[in-house]
Amino acid sequence: MRVLIYHNDAEQWRNILLERLPNAEIIVAMDSGNPQVDYLVAWKPPASVFDEQTALRGIVNLGAGVDALLQNPSLPRELPIVKLRDAGMGELIGDYVRYGVLHFQRDFDRYRRQQATSEWREVPVVDKPDWSIGVLGLGAIGTRVAQMLAADGYPVHGWSRSPKQIDGLTCHHGDDGLDTLLRQVKTLITLLPDTPATRHIINRDNLAKLPDGASLINPGRGTLIDEPALLEALGCGERDGASEGRLRGTLLDAFPHEPLPTDSPLWHHPRILITPHMAGPTPIGAAADQVADALDAMSKGKVVETIDPEAGY
Amino acid sequence: MRVLIYHNDAEQWRNILLERLPNAEIIVAMDSGNPQVDYLVAWKPPASVFDEQTALRGIVNLGAGVDALLQNPSLPRELPIVKLRDAGMGELIGDYVRYGVLHFQRDFDRYRRQQATSEWREVPVVDKPDWSIGVLGLGAIGTRVAQMLAADGYPVHGWSRSPKQIDGLTCHHGDDGLDTLLRQVKTLITLLPDTPATRHIINRDNLAKLPDGASLINPGRGTLIDEPALLEALGCGERDGASEGRLRGTLLDAFPHEPLPTDSPLWHHPRILITPHMAGPTPIGAAADQVADALDAMSKGKVVETIDPEAGY
Repeated sequence: MRVLIYHNDAEQWRNILLERLPNAEIIVAMDSGNPQVDYLVAWKPPASVFDEQTALRGIVNLGAGVDALLQNPSLPRELPIVKLRDAGMGELIGDYVRYGVLHFQRDFDRYRRQQATSEWREVPVVDKPDWSIGVLGLGAIGTRVAQMLAADGYPVHGWSRSPKQIDGLTCHHGDDGLDTLLRQVKTLITLLPDTPATRHIINRDNLAKLPDGASLINPGRGTLIDEPALLEALGCGERDGASEGRLRGTLLDAFPHEPLPTDSPLWHHPRILITPHMAGPTPIGAAADQVADALDAMSKGKVVETIDPEAGY
Repeated sequence: MRVLIYHNDAEQWRNILLERLPNAEIIVAMDSGNPQVDYLVAWKPPASVFDEQTALRGIVNLGAGVDALLQNPSLPRELPIVKLRDAGMGELIGDYVRYGVLHFQRDFDRYRRQQATSEWREVPVVDKPDWSIGVLGLGAIGTRVAQMLAADGYPVHGWSRSPKQIDGLTCHHGDDGLDTLLRQVKTLITLLPDTPATRHIINRDNLAKLPDGASLINPGRGTLIDEPALLEALGCGERDGASEGRLRGTLLDAFPHEPLPTDSPLWHHPRILITPHMAGPTPIGAAADQVADALDAMSKGKVVETIDPEAGY
């Protein structure tokens, strides 16, 4: 089989895939003039790729989010698309979220502000069993993250569009379930895919349902959040206490436009922690196993787990 | 039975003990004029308490340290004293340390500095299997913390004065073992008791043995650290990179004098995170279980584990 790779580290991907598929012809994509191939292995390929490649038999998306790919108007709708599922990303994102939860549960946000004014004041700790967490999105990564937090000792509520039952979690679904979840969680974690149904799901109405003093962690997609509503819920951020806004603070890793523009008001808000989309880097070895398995299966006509373009994930 | 409570949060203790001992008469202590009671539940009660209370049958000390109580010259020597033992402190300190390790391993310290200048730059992550951690002190709490970190996926080295073997840890001991440990850990955690042998164990010589870019977390005792040597190892802290000092950063919870004096240079160093001795508060629920069990046992004439006033613990 012939495979074309679009990726910032395409050469590294080529080498690691050749170790697994020694008989494949694996080509690093150029800006133009690429030969016709059977399969595309790509992360955010250029819009023109589907005009150039007319004999494709399948795509492997080098990430969990397929929104960029699906937004390409030239994408042939019948083409099977395999996406990376939890390839170690779940644990990396789990650790990111764990840090964020501890940041609020153990009051590191408050101690940071106190340090700025040399203030020595212990805040009574809320124990983990009393710190309910909500995880929106129960795909492979959301489930993994939710189960890590449950194993750490937090009560964890999960939410998905359709009903699920997952060990160790209290599962909710649908609009009513979202409402029920939001009203009782101290920290909300968004791990939903970017689809028309999830766009701006963190809006003014839903933020208003969270208990006063709740916190938000978004290691998912930037489009999930309505930024003006988020800023309104956080308040001006100058003083401590719930009176300034419904939200106590937030840790954000994903934004609608990345890099986050330097003039974004998010950068300098005292209750916002910003990280540059680093929560879930793809561990290349485990990911390469998945890519090689998918290519091998597709080339042999075996059934592979593909995404549903209508659902968007 | 009749119980008198001396504590800053005596009202909270009263309520939580009444849930467990609904038939007890539990009284919040006043400055004077308290009725005669059977049992004292107290943290650092006033010296006059034993002049006022002449019918006591036992004491429950609301902490692990009984030195303040034993220094009271009016304390009847034959009175049984029960103290709180590890009531979940190990896990609380483990979570504190986990936050500190993630702060450095996942580069949250760097992202925080980048945020101040609106800089969007991802740092390649060092995976947990490549992030060695050293834990100095393998008592009940040090062992618990080290095993939590090992379960999280970090290689963990432990050190104690005398040889130990503990599942999941690489154990070192003695001066040579300390040297071996220090030379290979990316994060060092100090959980030693305060003794003449451990005072200033984190000094210039030992800090110099750590790899460049190492980090330090001290949830233990303030006296373990030679502060001028720590500040020297951290460097001026104005710029990023290893060149400015051997140590990348530190998270400190304990200090020789608490509260940390407002004029301490530690407060405003950009590479020091300060928390007000909050890493291991006594979780009130688990502690209340211990107190209720002790009161119930003493009132029924059962054998309880009491402290040895001669040994002092």
